[in-house]
Amino acid sequence: MPQDADIFETLRQELRRGTLILAVLAQLKVERYGYGLRQALAEVGLEIDEGALYPMLRRLESQGLLTSEWREEDKRKKRFYRLSSEGEAVLARLAAEWRAMNDTLQNLIR
Amino acid sequence: MPQDADIFETLRQELRRGTLILAVLAQLKVERYGYGLRQALAEVGLEIDEGALYPMLRRLESQGLLTSEWREEDKRKKRFYRLSSEGEAVLARLAAEWRAMNDTLQNLIR
Repeated sequence: MPQDADIFETLRQELRRGTLILAVLAQLKVERYGYGLRQALAEVGLEIDEGALYPMLRRLESQGLLTSEWREEDKRKKRFYRLSSEGEAVLARLAAEWRAMNDTLQNLIR
Repeated sequence: MPQDADIFETLRQELRRGTLILAVLAQLKVERYGYGLRQALAEVGLEIDEGALYPMLRRLESQGLLTSEWREEDKRKKRFYRLSSEGEAVLARLAAEWRAMNDTLQNLIR
């Protein structure tokens, strides 16, 4: 049988995975570049590895939910991401899903 | 580019996946058999396919979070599941995680 700590950690990661996408979309209502986005997420307690964040950003952009642009800032080229209008619509629907699931879960786990 | 409806549905499923495990654990504080558990989840708005539920139950049992027992009820053999004491401890920790993530997300999506 796997170690307790591993079991909990795996379940915790599964619980976080969907949440992170919602958090990323929400944080990109304002334009941010990758590192700035990671910092913004870390500040609210949602640490995410670069190795997980960048593929997620590419995926969300390929799905049309984000737009991105290379620009120079502080003498360095950075890729800035921002929610597209399609992304805003998806975010609004996912946020409504989250609220509904949360109401349900709060009742179950209280 | 994939259809909007598909993109939303995929993200919704990802958001639900971790949540469902938490809901299943919470519903098994009392003993239930598979069909009864599916009904209990559906009543609170969390539909889950048999094809997703049974592998999840087997996995959670193999991880030591559930115990199960075959018993006859209404002249039919049914497998009853229930949270183990280890499962109770993991549920309590995951529920605390959920509350923390929810506080964070509610701030981000409001």
